Amino acid sequence: MTDVTTATQAGWLSREEMDAARERMPILYVDAVPVRVDDHGVVTGVGLLLRAGEDGQIKRALVSGRVLYHERVRTALIRHLEKDLGPLALPRVPPAPQPFTIAEYFPTPGVTPFHDPRQHAVSLAYVVPVEGDCSPQQDALELTWFSPLEVREPTVLAELANGQSVLLQQALAHLGV
Amino acid sequence: MTDVTTATQAGWLSREEMDAARERMPILYVDAVPVRVDDHGVVTGVGLLLRAGEDGQIKRALVSGRVLYHERVRTALIRHLEKDLGPLALPRVPPAPQPFTIAEYFPTPGVTPFHDPRQHAVSLAYVVPVEGDCSPQQDALELTWFSPLEVREPTVLAELANGQSVLLQQALAHLGV
Amino acid sequence: MTDVTTATQAGWLSREEMDAARERMPILYVDAVPVRVDDHGVVTGVGLLLRAGEDGQIKRALVSGRVLYHERVRTALIRHLEKDLGPLALPRVPPAPQPFTIAEYFPTPGVTPFHDPRQHAVSLAYVVPVEGDCSPQQDALELTWFSPLEVREPTVLAELANGQSVLLQQALAHLGV
Amino acid sequence: MTDVTTATQAGWLSREEMDAARERMPILYVDAVPVRVDDHGVVTGVGLLLRAGEDGQIKRALVSGRVLYHERVRTALIRHLEKDLGPLALPRVPPAPQPFTIAEYFPTPGVTPFHDPRQHAVSLAYVVPVEGDCSPQQDALELTWFSPLEVREPTVLAELANGQSVLLQQALAHLGV
Repeated sequence: MTDVTTATQAGWLSREEMDAARERMPILYVDAVPVRVDDHGVVTGVGLLLRAGEDGQIKRALVSGRVLYHERVRTALIRHLEKDLGPLALPRVPPAPQPFTIAEYFPTPGVTPFHDPRQHAVSLAYVVPVEGDCSPQQDALELTWFSPLEVREPTVLAELANGQSVLLQQALAHLGV
Repeated sequence: MTDVTTATQAGWLSREEMDAARERMPILYVDAVPVRVDDHGVVTGVGLLLRAGEDGQIKRALVSGRVLYHERVRTALIRHLEKDLGPLALPRVPPAPQPFTIAEYFPTPGVTPFHDPRQHAVSLAYVVPVEGDCSPQQDALELTWFSPLEVREPTVLAELANGQSVLLQQALAHLGV
Repeated sequence: MTDVTTATQAGWLSREEMDAARERMPILYVDAVPVRVDDHGVVTGVGLLLRAGEDGQIKRALVSGRVLYHERVRTALIRHLEKDLGPLALPRVPPAPQPFTIAEYFPTPGVTPFHDPRQHAVSLAYVVPVEGDCSPQQDALELTWFSPLEVREPTVLAELANGQSVLLQQALAHLGV
Repeated sequence: MTDVTTATQAGWLSREEMDAARERMPILYVDAVPVRVDDHGVVTGVGLLLRAGEDGQIKRALVSGRVLYHERVRTALIRHLEKDLGPLALPRVPPAPQPFTIAEYFPTPGVTPFHDPRQHAVSLAYVVPVEGDCSPQQDALELTWFSPLEVREPTVLAELANGQSVLLQQALAHLGV
């Protein structure tokens, strides 16, 4: 089995075609919660991105993005982690494909805790230890590492958009921290 | 939170549009392994459908199908279970959204154990106890209940197409039977 | 495979022997979060017991108890659920043995969020839908069904002892509610 | 939270006391399936130990052992992995405590697929990537890395005792390989 990535094929889908698809079918996403772990596997840090949203507001975010045509889920995870955290982040994608949960982002608020005004997206969510050096890339202004205790402060959670504070808390619960 | 189903909206996606989407993005699916359980939760039977494939060949299959736009994953599971097993099947969809695994069906054989010549589909896989009366519907010719021992016979597994024998064995392993 | 229960063998372990074992090895427990689900598998209620603790204080609690010698884990789950909720509770123990998490109760506070002054207990935690009539038994004074929203009220969580409020929140996160 | 290990306390439990406990309550174990992964998290190797059993027979085995009094489960995992694979193995214990399954070893054959003539043991099972140099220690004669394909050969599976071939296959199913 080989991982065939087709990042280039994303170009085959014009903006109009993607918009059309977004109105007609659920779009497959991955969400990653980047963590630092000590040598016992205990989580010592949780990484959140700082982004400027389309409305100009500054928001915190998890690593998140679309799975492309003919792309493995694990390849998509690594692609989005490296795109946001830089090529030296060394993400350790879990060996098993089972996500710890799924997040159903609906264009209509209130159907689930997750909301995406652009589309109906269903996201496979993973906790991913990163071992290397992280530096925010592209539209990410900053990457901040919080301790498991700090990251659940109401002020931090309030800075996450689209219900990702719920997903973060689900990850923390899964981690037992 | 309410479950908003939009089965009718499936009609909004013409055959041509669906074909176009299938060539450009992964399509979100659900796979369900229907089981009978005793009052200790021990699996006593595994249900397989008998279907006539597009090539006229008779094949066994799990319950499987697409998630529609604006449809909850659990609603899609119930819709496909009732479509294949009948309206009196009483499927007991698990309360937690975490699938026991995901199956990545590629149009190219050999990328993963799962293959779908029509499309790149990513399926969330669940084991679903059914408590009611099942009668095969629509294009399903028959529903057969196998004991956990019988269902892993090579002759039975060989009748499953597209790598679903692998998914069935993953379900049995997850069930510990 | 048959489930061999040996509840009677519990009597073979005298109080002194049990006390000796408790000081020397981790004791295997199960924790169950009883839930009511609707016909889509959505959790509509979470059941908490009201108990009088050894110190006379009234506390809320999950269903919890020891696994006996030569007893299956699923049999222990059903035994404790029926002991606390009554013989007509009809618990639907999940068909797969994978717990949604484990809780490590330490005699020393602060090692983990879970604390048990009597012993070091490691508990396998499950969410268990119950379909029948529940009536609190034995030392349980009351069983109260809370909505998923109510049960996470700080006043309710504060009534759970030994860190079980953490375990309850882990269960809710796993359920996606 | 700190990990308090009490390997020394194992000495407090005399052989007679341990034998007595073994006849009276389930003993908590951990099982680890050591794997090599590539930088996409894909499993490339599965490690099996070669041991001389008490009956003199040479058998393959997973890493397996008891959890001690006042020891964290993750600490027990690391202790047994380092005991069997050597101090430079660098095991990467998963950050979440949820095992992929549990194995119930019964002293009576046939109750479950798992059998341990000495005791009733309940084992929490994890897949653990190891990144360092492994060299078999103590009573392990050899450590062999098999490809995911080789390790499921009937001749290899037949060399595993006590039902661990079932547990290995459950791990492979969970890994999707």
